This record gives sequence, C-alpha cells and structure tokens, in this order.
Amino acid sequence: MKREQALAIVKEHLTEHRYVHTIGVMETAIKLAEKHGVNAEKAELAAIFHDYAKFRPKEEMKKIIVEQKMDPTLLDFHSELWHAPVGAYLVEKEAGICDEEILDAIKYHTSGKPRMSMLAKIIYLADYIEPNREFPGVREVRELTEVNFHQGFIKSVKNTISFLIQNNRPVFPLTFQMYNNIVMKMEDE
Amino acid sequence: MKREQALAIVKEHLTEHRYVHTIGVMETAIKLAEKHGVNAEKAELAAIFHDYAKFRPKEEMKKIIVEQKMDPTLLDFHSELWHAPVGAYLVEKEAGICDEEILDAIKYHTSGKPRMSMLAKIIYLADYIEPNREFPGVREVRELTEVNFHQGFIKSVKNTISFLIQNNRPVFPLTFQMYNNIVMKMEDE
Repeated sequence: MKREQALAIVKEHLTEHRYVHTIGVMETAIKLAEKHGVNAEKAELAAIFHDYAKFRPKEEMKKIIVEQKMDPTLLDFHSELWHAPVGAYLVEKEAGICDEEILDAIKYHTSGKPRMSMLAKIIYLADYIEPNREFPGVREVRELTEVNFHQGFIKSVKNTISFLIQNNRPVFPLTFQMYNNIVMKMEDE
Repeated sequence: MKREQALAIVKEHLTEHRYVHTIGVMETAIKLAEKHGVNAEKAELAAIFHDYAKFRPKEEMKKIIVEQKMDPTLLDFHSELWHAPVGAYLVEKEAGICDEEILDAIKYHTSGKPRMSMLAKIIYLADYIEPNREFPGVREVRELTEVNFHQGFIKSVKNTISFLIQNNRPVFPLTFQMYNNIVMKMEDE
C-alpha cells in the first residue's frame, strides 16, 4: 500500500492532533529503519497505522478483545492499552494489511513485550520520541537513540514504567516482562 | 519462644551489623503491631528470624529451593531474594517455629506478594524503615508510616521497584504483582 493511500485511510479515524503525531512517528520510524537496516516500507506502514483504533469506542474494543479471544488480562488494565491489539486486528480486517511483522509492531506498540522484532522496537520508540512529543525525559531519549538505538529503547521502557509507578498506575504484565527480559540480558553481557 | 532465646539463636547466624539491623526491625515491628492491632509476639518472632538465612552459602540455598520445590523462578533472579523463602523453611526446621503467619511473613519479606497479611506487611515495612537504615527516601517513608501505615507501605513498595529500575535490576514477578494489586485497589476506592 502506498503512503498516500494509507494516510488517507487513517486520517478518517484520527483527530488532527493524533494525525500530526502519526506523521511524526512515520518520519521518525523511516529514519530509524533506514539507519538500522530494517525494511523502511514496513516501518512506514506500521507507523501510519499504529494508532488506527485509538478513537474506537471502549465498548467496541472490549467486544473485539472478547470475541477475538485476545489476552483477557487486557480488560483488567487501562483501556489506553486496548487500541494497540484491537488496532492490529482492525488494520488487517479493514485496511487489508496482512504482513505479520507490521501487525505485530502495531499490536505491541503500547505495552511492548519481551523479544520484540527490530521493527516493533522502532515503532515503540518512534511513538515515544517523535518530534511533536513533549514530556520530561523525551529529549534525553531522543539524544540517546541518535547515539545508540538499544540504549534509547531501554531508556524509553524504563521511563514509561517509572512514570506509571510515580502516578500509581498499574503496569501491564508484558511491559514488566519486557523490562526484566532487557535487564537480564544486560546482566548476561 | 521467648525473645532472648530467639535472639540467641539468630545471633549465631548473623554478622554484628545484621544483628543490629534485626534488633531495629524487631523494635519497629513490635511498635507497628501494637499500633495496628496485630499480635506483637508474632511480629517480634517474625522480625527476629526474618534474616535467619541471610548468610547461608548460595549453593545451600539453591539446593533447598530445588529440593523443597519452591518457586523455580527464584533461581532466575538475584540470590538476594533467596534468603527469605529459604529462611522460612530453615526457621521451621531448625528453630521449630511453625506458626504459618510468622513463616509467611519471613518468606515474603524481600519480594513481597499480593494480598500480604498485616503481619507480613509490618515485617516488610519494618525491614525498610528500621532506625539503622539510611538511604534516599527512607525518612519520607518513616514519616508517612507514622501518619498512615498503608501509605508508608505503598511508598516503600514503589521506592523499591523504582530503585531496581534505576539500577537496571530485574524485578521479581511477585513484587510487581504486589504493586499492581495495590494500585488497582486504589483505583477501585
């Protein structure tokens, strides 16, 4: 699917603010993909569609999670997490994207998971550092990513969990498992 | 078991530094127990024996974890965590303590777990705030605990996880589950 066609599809599903964010994620993801030898066309599509389900009604997302037998634990956690797996499902069903790697990158762009592909890590990190993002710590992660992708990725994961803890918000098990997996690998190195 | 007898037993297994810490935990735990309507004699014994296995050789602890069919996940994590469940086992076997509530408080005093008893929470928190402890944030938790036990407990859990993340150290699953369980209850309130 061509960029223009993909953008036209998602534009209908996003607010103006979220569309601008999506363009930022797309540009960041393409740059990271080219720099790190990842298929840039896949990065482009995954980025464009990553927030496809962001504004679906909660009830619709819940229904899809149940009917499609997605991880039921999702329903115990904040609905903010739901748009990622639901998005992967809808992007395949409604936009006809069927590349498993792209769908996986969309599915895990919010929670993360242990052993993500480089493409999935790029979407996760681009979502965090795209130029329109402004929150404490984002500049440090941007700079770190320039120098060392892996360090930038780790920092974004750590910042995300620390932010959740500071704000008394639950941490989704996959996010926590991703963190443990990363630091346990560091110990082995 | 009387305090003197219990202290005499643990003294043989601890360094001087750790024995002084144990006395601090004991005094803090008794105060907290009396204040919050928990059996102070149980708090005393659990506190005295909480670090009973602290200085056992790693290999001995590993052997006990395997032979006693304790959670095998423990072995994937830092040996610092092992002395708590191994301690509960040895305290029963060697010192004849068989009160399940006391043994549970010892077993989970390092990792914590979801839905701990008040006794177990008291030992966990007393271990964190006893007067000999000096590390960033401990004073705040001490003061918070004076005003509101539950808030002090939550803060100690959050600080512990934040410290681990800052230092790129894995977080034991039970610790993370305890955190999620606490903040999810806060959301329900």
